[in-house]
Amino acid sequence: MRVDGREPLQLRPIHIETNYLMHPEGSVLISVGDTKVICTASIEDRVPNFMRGEGKGWITAEYSMLPRATESRNIRESSKGKVSGRTMEIQRLIGRALRAIVDLSALGEKTVWIDCDVIQADGGTRTASITGAFVAMTLALNSLSEKKAIKFPINDYLAATSVGILKNNQTVLDLNYAEDSKAQVDMNVVMTGNGEFVELQGTGEEATFSYEQLQELLHAAQEGLIELFEQQKMALGEEIVKKIDERRKK
Amino acid sequence: MRVDGREPLQLRPIHIETNYLMHPEGSVLISVGDTKVICTASIEDRVPNFMRGEGKGWITAEYSMLPRATESRNIRESSKGKVSGRTMEIQRLIGRALRAIVDLSALGEKTVWIDCDVIQADGGTRTASITGAFVAMTLALNSLSEKKAIKFPINDYLAATSVGILKNNQTVLDLNYAEDSKAQVDMNVVMTGNGEFVELQGTGEEATFSYEQLQELLHAAQEGLIELFEQQKMALGEEIVKKIDERRKK
Amino acid sequence: MRVDGREPLQLRPIHIETNYLMHPEGSVLISVGDTKVICTASIEDRVPNFMRGEGKGWITAEYSMLPRATESRNIRESSKGKVSGRTMEIQRLIGRALRAIVDLSALGEKTVWIDCDVIQADGGTRTASITGAFVAMTLALNSLSEKKAIKFPINDYLAATSVGILKNNQTVLDLNYAEDSKAQVDMNVVMTGNGEFVELQGTGEEATFSYEQLQELLHAAQEGLIELFEQQKMALGEEIVKKIDERRKK
Amino acid sequence: MRVDGREPLQLRPIHIETNYLMHPEGSVLISVGDTKVICTASIEDRVPNFMRGEGKGWITAEYSMLPRATESRNIRESSKGKVSGRTMEIQRLIGRALRAIVDLSALGEKTVWIDCDVIQADGGTRTASITGAFVAMTLALNSLSEKKAIKFPINDYLAATSVGILKNNQTVLDLNYAEDSKAQVDMNVVMTGNGEFVELQGTGEEATFSYEQLQELLHAAQEGLIELFEQQKMALGEEIVKKIDERRKK
Amino acid sequence: MRVDGREPLQLRPIHIETNYLMHPEGSVLISVGDTKVICTASIEDRVPNFMRGEGKGWITAEYSMLPRATESRNIRESSKGKVSGRTMEIQRLIGRALRAIVDLSALGEKTVWIDCDVIQADGGTRTASITGAFVAMTLALNSLSEKKAIKFPINDYLAATSVGILKNNQTVLDLNYAEDSKAQVDMNVVMTGNGEFVELQGTGEEATFSYEQLQELLHAAQEGLIELFEQQKMALGEEIVKKIDERRKK
Amino acid sequence: MRVDGREPLQLRPIHIETNYLMHPEGSVLISVGDTKVICTASIEDRVPNFMRGEGKGWITAEYSMLPRATESRNIRESSKGKVSGRTMEIQRLIGRALRAIVDLSALGEKTVWIDCDVIQADGGTRTASITGAFVAMTLALNSLSEKKAIKFPINDYLAATSVGILKNNQTVLDLNYAEDSKAQVDMNVVMTGNGEFVELQGTGEEATFSYEQLQELLHAAQEGLIELFEQQKMALGEEIVKKIDERRKK
Repeated sequence: MRVDGREPLQLRPIHIETNYLMHPEGSVLISVGDTKVICTASIEDRVPNFMRGEGKGWITAEYSMLPRATESRNIRESSKGKVSGRTMEIQRLIGRALRAIVDLSALGEKTVWIDCDVIQADGGTRTASITGAFVAMTLALNSLSEKKAIKFPINDYLAATSVGILKNNQTVLDLNYAEDSKAQVDMNVVMTGNGEFVELQGTGEEATFSYEQLQELLHAAQEGLIELFEQQKMALGEEIVKKIDERRKK
Repeated sequence: MRVDGREPLQLRPIHIETNYLMHPEGSVLISVGDTKVICTASIEDRVPNFMRGEGKGWITAEYSMLPRATESRNIRESSKGKVSGRTMEIQRLIGRALRAIVDLSALGEKTVWIDCDVIQADGGTRTASITGAFVAMTLALNSLSEKKAIKFPINDYLAATSVGILKNNQTVLDLNYAEDSKAQVDMNVVMTGNGEFVELQGTGEEATFSYEQLQELLHAAQEGLIELFEQQKMALGEEIVKKIDERRKK
Repeated sequence: MRVDGREPLQLRPIHIETNYLMHPEGSVLISVGDTKVICTASIEDRVPNFMRGEGKGWITAEYSMLPRATESRNIRESSKGKVSGRTMEIQRLIGRALRAIVDLSALGEKTVWIDCDVIQADGGTRTASITGAFVAMTLALNSLSEKKAIKFPINDYLAATSVGILKNNQTVLDLNYAEDSKAQVDMNVVMTGNGEFVELQGTGEEATFSYEQLQELLHAAQEGLIELFEQQKMALGEEIVKKIDERRKK
Repeated sequence: MRVDGREPLQLRPIHIETNYLMHPEGSVLISVGDTKVICTASIEDRVPNFMRGEGKGWITAEYSMLPRATESRNIRESSKGKVSGRTMEIQRLIGRALRAIVDLSALGEKTVWIDCDVIQADGGTRTASITGAFVAMTLALNSLSEKKAIKFPINDYLAATSVGILKNNQTVLDLNYAEDSKAQVDMNVVMTGNGEFVELQGTGEEATFSYEQLQELLHAAQEGLIELFEQQKMALGEEIVKKIDERRKK
Repeated sequence: MRVDGREPLQLRPIHIETNYLMHPEGSVLISVGDTKVICTASIEDRVPNFMRGEGKGWITAEYSMLPRATESRNIRESSKGKVSGRTMEIQRLIGRALRAIVDLSALGEKTVWIDCDVIQADGGTRTASITGAFVAMTLALNSLSEKKAIKFPINDYLAATSVGILKNNQTVLDLNYAEDSKAQVDMNVVMTGNGEFVELQGTGEEATFSYEQLQELLHAAQEGLIELFEQQKMALGEEIVKKIDERRKK
Repeated sequence: MRVDGREPLQLRPIHIETNYLMHPEGSVLISVGDTKVICTASIEDRVPNFMRGEGKGWITAEYSMLPRATESRNIRESSKGKVSGRTMEIQRLIGRALRAIVDLSALGEKTVWIDCDVIQADGGTRTASITGAFVAMTLALNSLSEKKAIKFPINDYLAATSVGILKNNQTVLDLNYAEDSKAQVDMNVVMTGNGEFVELQGTGEEATFSYEQLQELLHAAQEGLIELFEQQKMALGEEIVKKIDERRKK
C-alpha cells in the first residue's frame, strides 16, 4: 500500500478544466492529485530567427512555479535574475515533446508559446504540464483551424507520466512528492496515443536499474498513459477527438 | 453608462476564496471582475539583515503576472533576467501598505512574505493584490497566533481600489483595463477600516487634475472601500473579525 | 522649531545654476539646501519602438546617486548589475511628471533623455530632481525651438516638493534627511504653475493619515511650490518665461 | 555503410590520455573520433550548504565548449552572461551519473568538481565527457585514498555512449555530428560496468519510436559500452582496476 | 600650435577644489581643462575577504561617467547591467596606482574606497582621476591620522598625465579629446613625487612607436607631472605637505 | 639563478603546434614553459555596427582560462554571469595589439575573432596568447588570401613577453607564476618584428621603478622577443615568412 492509499499502478485523480483563462487562445487548469498546473497556449505570427523562411511553425514552452507552490517558499527566478537548470530542462522537454505530434508545416510561420505555471506542487509537475499543455495547445490550434487560418495539425494524442522504484523495490506509477523524493529510480515517459515513445528519461538517484526493472517501469507507465489519454479525450470533446483520430489513421 | 454597464461609482463583482492552496500559511484567490490574483502569505523565522536584533517583524511582497494573464503574451521577467520598474513599484507598494496595519513588534523577528500572482488581468491588479493579500496575511497570522507563537497583530482592515477621471471628465470607481488605458487621471487609494489613508497615488497621464477633482476622486474611492471591507469580513469569518475589531477599539 | 531652525512651512535655500555642463543641450546644478543634483536634458532623434510612427515625442528619465552622496557609501548599481526598485520608481516618476506639461506632438519623433545625478543628498532628491529637470529640459527644448527644429512645446511650469507629518504631528514643508527618516507621513506633490496636480504620492510609514491631515499637507505643499516656480522663472530668464506664459493663457 | 565508413554498431576510435594537465588532482584528454574533451577533477574540502553536516561528499560537474570547438563560432556563455539550457542539462547529467557509482559517505565532507571542456566537437560530447570524467575522477580519488585521506570510494565503472535511429531507420552506435543532426531518434545511455542503467535519455526529434526500436537501441548501446569500459581500464592501469573490481564483488 | 592654442608640452589649466562634498572623509572636484571629475575617499573599517587577518589595509577604486559627460549620451552601466571593459581597466589602474605610495600596514585592516565620477569629459579622465584621487585620499587619511586612528601613511606624491604622438608626429602633453581620438600613440604615465614610475601604459592605435619616441614621450610626461605635483601641494596645504615630505626623506 | 634554473634573460622553452583544431580557419597550441594556450582565429563576414560602411575589417579577441588551468580551481565566468576586469583588460590588449600589424583595409568588412583559451597557466598567459594568436591569425588570413578572398594583409611579426624586477632587484625575462606573484615590477612588452613597440605596460606592485630600471627591462624584453619571432617564423613556414618579409620592406 502506498503512502496515500493507492495501488502501485494507480494514478491519482485527474481533472482537466478547459478554457480556464479568458485571454489565451487555449488554456487549461490540470490537476493530478494535489499537483495543479495552469497551461496556456498563445499563438504568435512569427517564428524564431533560426527558422525564418522555412515555411514551418515552431512550438516552445516555458515553465515556472509560484513561489509557494511548494512546502517551503522558493525564491522567484525573476528575483534571482536567472532561470535554474531544472526549469530549463523541463521547458526544453515540454517543447520537444509537443513538437513530436504536430505537423509543423501545417502551422505555417507561427509560434505556439506554451506556458505551464505550477500553482500547487505535489510531484509530477513536468508530466502534468505535458499532459495539460497538449490539451491547451490542441484547443488553440483547433480554434485557429476553425477560422481557416491553418489546417488542423495535431497528429496524435500526447501525455506523460512518471514511474519509479521505491526504496522497498516496489515499482509505482505517478509518484507524489513524498514518494518521488525518496525513490531510487525515477522515470518520465512521454507517449503518443498510438503507444510510441516520444521521450524516455530514466534516472538512478545515487542508484542504478537493471534491464528487467526498465521493462517493468515501462509497463507501469503504459497503464497510466492509457487512462490519461481518456481524460484528454473527455476534456477536448468529441468533435476534436474525431479530427485527431482521422489524422492518426493516415 | 460605462463600457461594461456599471454605474460610475459601482465596483465590479468581488469574490475572495480563502485557503486556495495547500502549502502556504495563508492564501486566497481574489477576483475583482475579470481580474484574478492568487495571494499567499508565508512565514519565515528570520528578518532581513538590516532589521536583525530589533525584535520586530517585517512584511515584504512580491508581485508577478502569468505571461498570458494579459491580452497579448508578456515575456517572463525570469527570462529577461530582471524585474521591471512597474513590478518593483507595485511590490514595494503592497509591502508598505500591509506594514501600516500590523503591529510589527508583536510579530517578533519573523518575516511575512506576500506573493501576489496575477493569473488573469483586467485592470486594478495592484489594488486587488492589496485587498487579497490583507486576507491571506491575516489568515496566516491568525493561525500563528492560535498556535500561541505570536499575539494577534492586525490593527485594522486594509483594502485598496482605484478611481479615475475618464476622457469625458466622468469620475469612476474601480477601472477595468479598457477604462484604465484611456483615463486621464488614475488614482490608487489604500485605506484602513477606520477610513484613514495609508497610500494615495494620483497620476495625471499627460494630464493634470484640480483640487476639486481630487476631492471627488477621494469620495468615490471611499464608496468602494466600504464595500471591500465588507467582503474581507465575510471572507475572514466572524471570529477573526471580532479579534480585529477589538484591536481597532484600542 | 525644526532641526535646522526653519519654520514649519519654510523651504530650504534654493539655487539653480543653468548651463552647468558643456555637452548637454540643457543642464543645471540645482541645490535645495544641502541636496545637490546635476540635471541634464539630451535630445535624441528617435523615439522608443512602442511609439514609432505616431509622430509624437517622448520624455524619459534616469536617476542615480554618486556612491558617496550619502552619509555612508552606497554600492554602485552598475557594480550590483541591477537598478534598485527605489531608483526605478523615481525615474518613472520624473519622466511621467515632465510628460504632463509638454506638448509631445510638437516635439515630433524625438526623445528627451533626462538624467538626474545626485551628487550630495540631504532629503528630497526626487523632488529636487523634478524641479531641476524641468529647467534643464526647458532650456534644451527652447534652444531646439530657436533653431526652428520644433515649435516651443512647454505648456506650463512644473515643480515638486515634499511635505510630511513629523512624529510630533507637526506638518512640515521640504523635509531634510533627518526629518524624512523619522516622519510618520511623507508626501510628494508635483504641480503645474497653474496649481493643478500632476502627481500626488502620500505614504504612511507604518502609520496612516486622515482627510484633514491630507488637506493640511496639500496646503503646505502649495506654499512651497509657489516659491519654487519663482526660482525656476529666475533661472530660465524673461524671454523663456514669456513663451511659457503665452502658452498657459491658451 | 555510414558517412565515415563505420559499421552500424562500430564505435569511433577512442583515446584517453591521463594526467593531461599539471594542476588538477585528476585529468584526462579523451578523444572519441574527432570529439575531444579535457576532463578534470578537483577536490574541495567542503560541501555545498544544503549538504553540510551530513558527513557525506558531493560531486558536481561543469561543462563548456571552446567557442570554436564547432563548425561555426559560438558566443561564449561568459559573454552572454548566462549559461544555456543545453549546458545546464548536460552538467546536471554528468554530475548525477558520477554520483551513482561513488560511495559518497566514504568521501567525507568533500566536493569533487568535474570540469569537462570540449575543445573539439563532432557529436557525442556529453557521453565522451562522462566517459572521460569517470577516469579523471577515479585518478583524483585514488590519489586521495593513497594519501590515506579517504577510503577508495569507486563502486563500479561508468561510461556513456549515444545510439540513434537514422532517417533510413538504421540503428547506429556512437553518432558523429553529421549523423546526430539528422537522426530521428537520439538516445544517451549511461551504464555501469555491471550492465546496470544509470541514465537513459531517449528523444524523438519531431518523431517517435516503438518498444521494439527501444530494445534495438539498448542492445546497440551495450555493444559500445563494453568497449568503452575496456578503454577506461587500460587508461586507469591494473592497480586501480583491481581496487574497483574488489568493490564490485561486494 | 595645438587645436586649443597650447604649446606641445603645455598642460591645460588645473584646478583642485578640496572638501567639495559634505559626506565623504575626503573629496575634491578636479578640473583639467574642460575635464571635471569628482573624487571622493571613503574609509571602511574592514578589508576584502582575501586580505583578512593580514593586519594590512586596502585601497580600491571605482570610476564612472555621467551619461552626458560626453558629446553624445552614453547608456548608464547600471542600465546595461554590466560594467564595460574600459571602466574596469581604469578602476583597476587607479587603485593599483594609489596603493604604490601608501604604507598599507600603517592603515590597519581598513579599506579606502576611491570613487571617481566624471561629470564632464574632454580627454584625460583617467589621469585626472588619479591626480584628484590622490588629494582626496590624502585628505581622508590625514584626518584619520589627526584623530590618532592611524599613523600618517602617505609615502610620496602621486600624479598622472597623458602624452601622445599626433598624426603629424608631434609629441604632445595632456591630450584633450579632439587630440586623443586622432593620436597614433597614447601613453599614460603615473609617477611619484620622487620621479619614479608607478605605471606606464603606452599604446599604438593601429600604429607603433620606436625607442626614441618612447624617450621623448617620457620626457614630455615628466614636464607635466612636475606642475601637477605643485598643484597637489597647493591643494593639500603646508601642513600636509610637510608630513609627506618628512616621509619621503626616509 | 632563477627558481627553475634559468639564466635571468633566458626564455622558457617555446613550442607552437599549428592547425591544432579542425574547425577554425587558423589555430595553434602554444606552450611557453608550462603555460599552454589554445589560440584560434575565426573569420566572420561582417564587422561590428560601429564600423559598418567604412570598408575596413576588424580584429577582436576573447580570453579565458579553464577553471583548473591554475593551482586552485577558479569559478567559471559563465557561472558568475560576468567577465572579470582582468579578463577584459587582457582581451582588449590582445585585440589592440593584433590590429597594429594588420592592414585592416585589405581585410574588407570582415571580423577576425581571436579566442585564447588557457588550458594550463604558469605565468605569462597574456603574452603567450598574443604570440600564439599572431600565428593563428596569420594562418587564417593567409588561407583566405590564397583563396583570393583578400590580399595578404600582415604587415609585420608581432610577439609579446614579460619582464620584471624580482624582490632581489634582479631583472628577469619571461616570468613564471612563482616569480610573477612575488615581483615588485612587472612589464609586458608587445613588439613588432622591426623592433617597434605596440604596447608597453609596466606596473609597480606596491612599488615603483626608475628610468634606469625601465631601460634595463626594455633591453631584457628585446632579447626574448628576438627568439619569439624566430619561433613564429618556424611555425608559419617559409612561404608565409616570405610574404610577411615582402610587406615589411615596403
